[in-house]
Amino acid sequence: MIQQEPTSRFLRACAGLPVDATPIWLMRQAGRYMPAYRELRARHSMLECIHTPELAAEITLQPINAFALDAAIIFSDILPPLVGMGLQLEFAQGEGPVLHNRLARPYDIDLLATPPAAQTMAGTLKAIELVTAELQPRGIPLIGFAGAPFTLASYAIEGGGSKTYQRTKSLMYGEPAAWGRLMDKLVTVQADYLLAQAKVGASALQLFDSWAGHALSKQDYVRFVQPYNTKLFQQLARANVPVINFSTGTSPYIEEVAKCGGTVIGVDWHLPIDEVWQRIGTDKPIQGNLDPTALLAPWRELQFQVDDVLDRVNGRAGHIFNLGHGIFKETPVENVQRLADYVHEKSSKQ
Amino acid sequence: MIQQEPTSRFLRACAGLPVDATPIWLMRQAGRYMPAYRELRARHSMLECIHTPELAAEITLQPINAFALDAAIIFSDILPPLVGMGLQLEFAQGEGPVLHNRLARPYDIDLLATPPAAQTMAGTLKAIELVTAELQPRGIPLIGFAGAPFTLASYAIEGGGSKTYQRTKSLMYGEPAAWGRLMDKLVTVQADYLLAQAKVGASALQLFDSWAGHALSKQDYVRFVQPYNTKLFQQLARANVPVINFSTGTSPYIEEVAKCGGTVIGVDWHLPIDEVWQRIGTDKPIQGNLDPTALLAPWRELQFQVDDVLDRVNGRAGHIFNLGHGIFKETPVENVQRLADYVHEKSSKQ
Repeated sequence: MIQQEPTSRFLRACAGLPVDATPIWLMRQAGRYMPAYRELRARHSMLECIHTPELAAEITLQPINAFALDAAIIFSDILPPLVGMGLQLEFAQGEGPVLHNRLARPYDIDLLATPPAAQTMAGTLKAIELVTAELQPRGIPLIGFAGAPFTLASYAIEGGGSKTYQRTKSLMYGEPAAWGRLMDKLVTVQADYLLAQAKVGASALQLFDSWAGHALSKQDYVRFVQPYNTKLFQQLARANVPVINFSTGTSPYIEEVAKCGGTVIGVDWHLPIDEVWQRIGTDKPIQGNLDPTALLAPWRELQFQVDDVLDRVNGRAGHIFNLGHGIFKETPVENVQRLADYVHEKSSKQ
Repeated sequence: MIQQEPTSRFLRACAGLPVDATPIWLMRQAGRYMPAYRELRARHSMLECIHTPELAAEITLQPINAFALDAAIIFSDILPPLVGMGLQLEFAQGEGPVLHNRLARPYDIDLLATPPAAQTMAGTLKAIELVTAELQPRGIPLIGFAGAPFTLASYAIEGGGSKTYQRTKSLMYGEPAAWGRLMDKLVTVQADYLLAQAKVGASALQLFDSWAGHALSKQDYVRFVQPYNTKLFQQLARANVPVINFSTGTSPYIEEVAKCGGTVIGVDWHLPIDEVWQRIGTDKPIQGNLDPTALLAPWRELQFQVDDVLDRVNGRAGHIFNLGHGIFKETPVENVQRLADYVHEKSSKQ
């Protein structure tokens, strides 16, 4: 099949092609910092918004209609696929996600199912269809996403978020065979889910490994994560869309992360983007890497930090501007607007 | 003055001198994983234990009397010096530390006092005298310590711990002059406190910068932390004892951390010790870097990880074995015993 060169800035950057201005989107761009989102969430629970295609589609489009962003990302969360596997998920008010029947023993892992996403994540897949129908004529790509195996495993084992990942690592160290079975099941479920998202219209996919870098040493990452992420990226090649390999806290060993695969490497803000780009190889497209806290700062400081990112990239092809992690709910809306416009304006002159 | 070569393993390693076996101590070695500590804490509050010299001395000695450790560290916490500056500190049950009157505006910073440690931390200084009297005849060095300016500032501004350091960084970005005044005050107070600890008998000092690396990019570390830590280490030269520059989450830019100063660089577990040692320069003594979670693992895995650290060091002089962060309260006591013995045994043959 003959592939045509993509025309959208975002997909061109994913392919390492030159662009008229640097594409920008923001992780968690559809979220609580937007009044329209808060208004909708006041009437619908998190899980209702995720599983009702019309609501998820509406939320996905809110930031696209408000700001000059170059890609949409389907509104969802990384955790719902765990429900299909047998975990009881609740987004508890003010507490973050809770998994009520956490994986405490190897036996619990063997009870996990690996049902197809078509059955368990039908609402999200339908929402992708709705958003694609809306955005395709406007030339705006839609990103599908899923959580990486380690990050999902940590939620499932800890029963929620964690500062130390003690339970996760205790299981990993103490029951390595069970750990392997859990990671394999997560690879199966997440590969199927991501491939299904591409099939119904997503123009790109992002894998979120939010916690592996915080939890693990380089040696443990190589032993306990890299083999599974590599398998997952291998399976995603069939999707025939660009895949963004995003993680946080991994800058000490970003080379090992990049080795797992992915078309684009998404990096957090701990290292200057040119330094980390050199380490993964500048032939590889990169996404990042403004500190989301900069969006809480006065414009002179925010501009200083945006300039720093763009000056370090210096017009090199293959850069997608983004934050180094999700946007904070305290972010002033006007800063998002100004950021998107400024990135386009400044980069178009570089 | 003619300095004699130190005889204790720990101080010899701090000076980069050869040792008969690798010295080991563990951050938070006097703590809740020990039954004797829990028994004592059931009768006395945290602040009572810190400020009562006899209690602090007793707790300090508990792990020294129980395990083959090569250095003691005075029992205290990094936060009490903030009380002397005007902050209201509480160790709330199960919640971690709370600062009731957090620094919300530049004005709050200008109200902070900088009293001498002799006045505000007299209990800890007295405890150091008591422990020194006990340990000097036994040839075991005692380490004094304090929190680094950024880490203390983050507690004072957030009002406790934080995952995102939003308030701290908002003040840092939005009010850089006030940030500078706060950091300068902390340098004054902490330099005085550490010098006082050396004066009453501490044979070494450790500065804990627990959160700068988690919170800050390399660029921000260089702008907002490095100048102050550098000033602090310059002042500590007068103490005439080795100073350990310890931080966590800083491995992406450990060179910048090492540049601030310190006799020994204490590193967390995110990178293999030989890799990080190459980066800071192998002429610089290093402390670390077992993942504290390894102490929750079965012996075969714990041994595997200890072997990895020692094999990478490969007998090079200037290594102090430690964890990459504080020991967990869930740690089995027998693992600590076995770890200390094994490090001595294995390294004595290298």
